[in-house]
Order: sequence, then C-alpha cells, then structure tokens
Amino acid sequence: MNSPGYRTSILVRFGDLDPAGIAYYPHLVNFLHVAFEDFFSGHVGKPFPEVLRGGLGFPIVKLEMDFRSPVRHGDSVQIDVAVEHVGRSSLRLRYEGGIEGRAAFVARTTVVAVDMNRFRPVRIPDDLRERFEAGRG
Amino acid sequence: MNSPGYRTSILVRFGDLDPAGIAYYPHLVNFLHVAFEDFFSGHVGKPFPEVLRGGLGFPIVKLEMDFRSPVRHGDSVQIDVAVEHVGRSSLRLRYEGGIEGRAAFVARTTVVAVDMNRFRPVRIPDDLRERFEAGRG
Amino acid sequence: MNSPGYRTSILVRFGDLDPAGIAYYPHLVNFLHVAFEDFFSGHVGKPFPEVLRGGLGFPIVKLEMDFRSPVRHGDSVQIDVAVEHVGRSSLRLRYEGGIEGRAAFVARTTVVAVDMNRFRPVRIPDDLRERFEAGRG
Amino acid sequence: MNSPGYRTSILVRFGDLDPAGIAYYPHLVNFLHVAFEDFFSGHVGKPFPEVLRGGLGFPIVKLEMDFRSPVRHGDSVQIDVAVEHVGRSSLRLRYEGGIEGRAAFVARTTVVAVDMNRFRPVRIPDDLRERFEAGRG
Repeated sequence: MNSPGYRTSILVRFGDLDPAGIAYYPHLVNFLHVAFEDFFSGHVGKPFPEVLRGGLGFPIVKLEMDFRSPVRHGDSVQIDVAVEHVGRSSLRLRYEGGIEGRAAFVARTTVVAVDMNRFRPVRIPDDLRERFEAGRG
Repeated sequence: MNSPGYRTSILVRFGDLDPAGIAYYPHLVNFLHVAFEDFFSGHVGKPFPEVLRGGLGFPIVKLEMDFRSPVRHGDSVQIDVAVEHVGRSSLRLRYEGGIEGRAAFVARTTVVAVDMNRFRPVRIPDDLRERFEAGRG
Repeated sequence: MNSPGYRTSILVRFGDLDPAGIAYYPHLVNFLHVAFEDFFSGHVGKPFPEVLRGGLGFPIVKLEMDFRSPVRHGDSVQIDVAVEHVGRSSLRLRYEGGIEGRAAFVARTTVVAVDMNRFRPVRIPDDLRERFEAGRG
Repeated sequence: MNSPGYRTSILVRFGDLDPAGIAYYPHLVNFLHVAFEDFFSGHVGKPFPEVLRGGLGFPIVKLEMDFRSPVRHGDSVQIDVAVEHVGRSSLRLRYEGGIEGRAAFVARTTVVAVDMNRFRPVRIPDDLRERFEAGRG
C-alpha cells in the first residue's frame, strides 16, 4: 500500500487455526477488529475502549474480504489500515494483511457511528473525523 | 450419570477444531455455557436470555475440567448437567460430556448470582432456587 | 428468498454477544460456516466432516456480507443457503439470515475445492457437483 | 508470585467481551494458551509453532481456574507462568493473571506431551524438560 495509513501487526495463535493448520477465516475477520482497535490507539489517538465507554460505537454494516494466501501458526500478520471514505456517520476502511511481503488478505469494512444508548446513527464527532481524514490511504 | 439432572447435546463444528482435528479446549469450555443456557430453557423453565434481560447474571468464579478423550468434528456431545450445591448466591454445577457412551470431559463450575446493574452478588430468587434444587444429580 | 435452496437455523448464544448485547460480527461469519456444514448434511447428503476426512476441503477465497439488523441473544436465526455458481473448482453460495421474517444479514462466499493433502484446487467431484447444482437459488 | 517463572501480557480486545462488558471466561481460558505459547518462545527458547510442526503436541488433560475479579476492555493482563511439576510425559503449569497488581485469575493446567502423528503420550524430550525444570515457580 503506497499510502500513509496506519500499520499494526498480529501474531497468529494456536486458537486461530483450523484442522488444515491455517487460520480459520472468522478469526481473520476478528483480526480486522483488532487492527481497528489498534488504529484508534495508534493513529486516532484515543483508545477504542475509551471511545466505547464514552457511549460511541461503530457497528459494521458491510464487509468485503478477499483471502489471497493461507495464514499460518506463528505468522506475524502486518495489517495496513487506511481510511477510504468518511461520511456523516459512516466510515469506510481498507485493510491489507500481509506476511513478509506476501499478500494474505484484503478487506473493506463500512461501519456507522452510533450512540450506544439508543443504538442510533450519530454524526462522527469532529475530533475523530479529523483523525479519520488524516488516515486516508 | 445415574441422576435425574438434565441432558442436552451439542454438535461439534469446524470452527471448534484445532490443527490436530480435535476440539480446542476453550471451545469445550464454551460448550459448558451452551449447556448452562440449555439447562435454563430445558430444566429451569426460564430462558437464560430472559433471565439476563431481567438483570440477573451468573458470572463464574471457579472452573474445574478434566479432559478424558478427544472430541472430533461431527461428534454429537451429550452433556449431562446436574446441580451439586445451591448456596445463598452461589450455584455449583457438574457437567459430564460424552460421545456415544464414551466419556469426553467432566467439569464443575461455581457461578454466583449477581445484580447486573451493580455487579454485586444477590440471593438466588426463590423460583430459580426451587428449580436448581430440583436439578440435583 | 423465493428459491428452493436449503434452510437451517442457529440459536444465538451468550458467547456470540458483544458488550452492546448483539452478536459480534466474526461470530456471524462463523454462522455462515455452520450453515455451510448443515447444507452438506441437509442438502448435499454427505456430512461435511466426512467430506473433509475424505481429503477434500473448501477454503474461502471471497466473502461479502451486509449486516441489516442486530442479532440478539436467544434469537433463532434462519439461514437460507442457495448456490449461485458452480465452477470447475469454485462454488459461490448466498446466505440470507433472518429473524422472524426480519432480514439480519445477507452474505456471499466463494470457496474453492482443494485436495487437503497438497492444498491445491481440484475439480469438484461429480456427486457433489450434482447436489450443488440442485441447490441453486 | 515470588518466583522466577515467566511473565507475559495480553491486551483485552472487544472480541473477548461479553454483554456485561467483561471478558467471557472461555476467552480467558484461551489467554492461558496464548501465555503457554509465549512461555515457549520467551522462556523455553523454542517457538511453540515450531515444536508442533516437529510433531510434538501438548493436549490438556486437566484445567482448574479461579476467577478473582472482572477483566475489562483495554486491560493489559499480566500473566505469570510457572512450572509446578514435570513428569515423564506430563507438565503441570500455574498461571496467575493480574491487572495493575490486582489478581484477575489463577489457573493450573496439566498437559501431556504426545506424538502428534499417533496422538500417544511420549517422554518429554530432554531439551524441553531442562527448560521446563528451569521455569519452576
């Protein structure tokens, strides 16, 4: 990815594996959320647990994911997180997962900012919006 | 188990397996909670989601589990749930998991009734207590 | 879905939930695989564990999933599985998840038949191909 | 823990949480395995994936776990791993999980070295045995 964006890495654990000895794909989907959390602490500058406890959540509305090559036990998966679009309430992110330069998966998620008490969409607060914009790929 | 108790069964899925092709033990621990939920709907007579939404939870304080033989993909695990002790707030349950008569695991959990708003122990309500007592193994 | 296809249902468990009390989306992705397994035993006529033990696997290469409404504890999610395309090695499936008539999610997966020993694509065997074709939505 | 042993830490993620906003206990059981893997790379000096690929596995036969206090989103759980007993094939480990000095859980597991091809117990190899002995609490 030739972008600024944000990069994190996740170590593949025994519990992520399937009987073929490769990561079971729902666990790779979970990796996207782990990277999303790291993106908050590492790029946005506000830890995700703190955002949530402040009453703002980001439920997913759309997920697209291509699986390019197997992910194995002990692999350190580098994940590049880039913002593709910031709407009023919605946020579209792109994730590129690689292992030592080899593409493992590419994913795109659309999430929507919601007030966690009423579970209704809300405008993305300006401080977060500014940081999301700065994370464009 | 030569007891009244309650029996449920759980089908082992691909996502429960480890690279050796047997169930990864944290998933078998999750099976205990699935059986606990079934025990509520099938024996206690009040679905667990309803109990929770009523503000009562049962966090675990103690778990003991012996793994007797491997659990494989497609196995239907029969789980016998029996009540061992009902205290003021605490409940001790015993789970025996078997596959076609072969012992797979035996577990014991102690959970405590808590008010989910304050997360403090509360006395087990009488209607539940009565059903728990009736579930003694 | 006004199609023949195949329908199964999955009960939402405590372990599927997130702090908002709704199903965490990687668990809904896992539901797709559970439905895929049920599709084998219920429609294809050959249990998936048996297919796997015979050396044939179906790793995913593409996933698209739209999340339409929250999935809650105790919900029985009906999942309609329909075959959209059968290629030489590839199989595209569509999943519609609903709760009492309300759409919960729609997903599409592309999987590829592989020889599990060499982890290389193979032609879908005729007996499976015939049943996949019969599952067209 | 006033022992030499080995210490690792695990960050609690959104996907580990239950509707009460605390870690769901099967995920804490998974933490034990993550700590076990870290113990191999950090103390034993041989990464666990490598051990496994060499044909040696360590399935669990016994688990005991006390849950002392809730584990929350964003907590960094420090886990002290100490060896309690090294038998011919068996290994007993003790895990103490804490968050900023507060006890979160204490666990004990017994695992057995097995030849992964035949899934039969084998004598713990000398190089591993020596490192296990050096990890006594």
